[in-house]
Amino acid sequence: MLFSMDHWRHAFKLDPNKEISDKDLESVCESGTDGIIVGGTDDVTLPGVVDLVSRVKKYSVPCVLEVSSIDAISPEFDAYLIPMVLNSQDKQWMMDVQHEAIKQYKHFMSWKEMFFEGYCVMNEDAKAFTYTNCKLPTREDVLAYAYMAEHVFHLPYFYLEYSGMYGDPDLVYDVSSELGQTKLIYGGGIHTLAEAKEMSMYADMIVVGNAIYTNLTEALQTVRIKQQSF
Amino acid sequence: MLFSMDHWRHAFKLDPNKEISDKDLESVCESGTDGIIVGGTDDVTLPGVVDLVSRVKKYSVPCVLEVSSIDAISPEFDAYLIPMVLNSQDKQWMMDVQHEAIKQYKHFMSWKEMFFEGYCVMNEDAKAFTYTNCKLPTREDVLAYAYMAEHVFHLPYFYLEYSGMYGDPDLVYDVSSELGQTKLIYGGGIHTLAEAKEMSMYADMIVVGNAIYTNLTEALQTVRIKQQSF
Repeated sequence: MLFSMDHWRHAFKLDPNKEISDKDLESVCESGTDGIIVGGTDDVTLPGVVDLVSRVKKYSVPCVLEVSSIDAISPEFDAYLIPMVLNSQDKQWMMDVQHEAIKQYKHFMSWKEMFFEGYCVMNEDAKAFTYTNCKLPTREDVLAYAYMAEHVFHLPYFYLEYSGMYGDPDLVYDVSSELGQTKLIYGGGIHTLAEAKEMSMYADMIVVGNAIYTNLTEALQTVRIKQQSF
Repeated sequence: MLFSMDHWRHAFKLDPNKEISDKDLESVCESGTDGIIVGGTDDVTLPGVVDLVSRVKKYSVPCVLEVSSIDAISPEFDAYLIPMVLNSQDKQWMMDVQHEAIKQYKHFMSWKEMFFEGYCVMNEDAKAFTYTNCKLPTREDVLAYAYMAEHVFHLPYFYLEYSGMYGDPDLVYDVSSELGQTKLIYGGGIHTLAEAKEMSMYADMIVVGNAIYTNLTEALQTVRIKQQSF
């Protein structure tokens, strides 16, 4: 059966550059989350990625890599998420690094396990925002990006990334109304179950990242959105 | 029934900036071609486009607009082709002008009649090449662009545009081998039936443009590829 993330409602995002104890990692992997996303913006290195995935793979939870550097791709993941930064001002981050990767790896990798995601970075203070030279989009810009992700590019995922900052639920709602086939992923600033619930009302999947490292007990509670019916 | 160009094997491309007599236009429209594409690179104005489409619409041949300027879109066409220049060095020509158009017109237009095409401009001397700040791709680049058009962006068409120059049939063959669902359009330098035949062996659709204005008798012969079985 093909690997799919389409049913995921909750994911934890682990940063290969941040320390996490074996005990805490076990709590995360055994939390009941739908999957682990490994990803970070800067200094993502192959040894860091390999170390983290090998630790996660001790558990049965699916583990996918959000590729931020072509030099840090390890074959041990269940699948690979390839971000295309729609609100970058440089074509490089929208499609050229991806084009280069395809040129190099086309014959070696199983593209059935590659999922391209339309990425929209919503936080001007985020490293990813600066690194990929983004421009802060207006509400109308975001809705048109979502429209393109679905109707022009037919991407499986549209990722609204507030990266450390809790986003605007009204905008998440508007984007969700714009999308049909393309799944909406929300990430950024979710630290509590209440926040997780709010964003889950609109997003198909929520991603909890920083909270793992700041307040793990609260972070683990966010998985309970899966028990709720909305 | 929805409008489709998927069965087109031959199209004539008319430039709103070039003069064509009523008699010649009749020959083109009644030639048996599958359709007329109206398109040009510079100084495409709404009055020029409107004048040309109204003359073409006297005939039963389908007529589509290849949009090069958001200010020159007339509603009289059967469909609209939206180029996304994959080998431009600027994100602007790959997706930003299209994003702007979607923002403005999303609620007014029927997107069922909009076809986005992955465009690859192969002629350094072409106006379109300079205008959209293209970089000449290598063979491997082109194949990876074709791969992206199909597998990443799921675009209905991949347009290999040699713009006035007869292209490399081996590359057209290689690209056609790379594509499955996405249809390959070839354009550039076709002046004779022999050239039309050669490119038709690999491309799903060939486009004949300049020859209309330089040697119409020969240009009209290219429609005969439709009688051939390959």
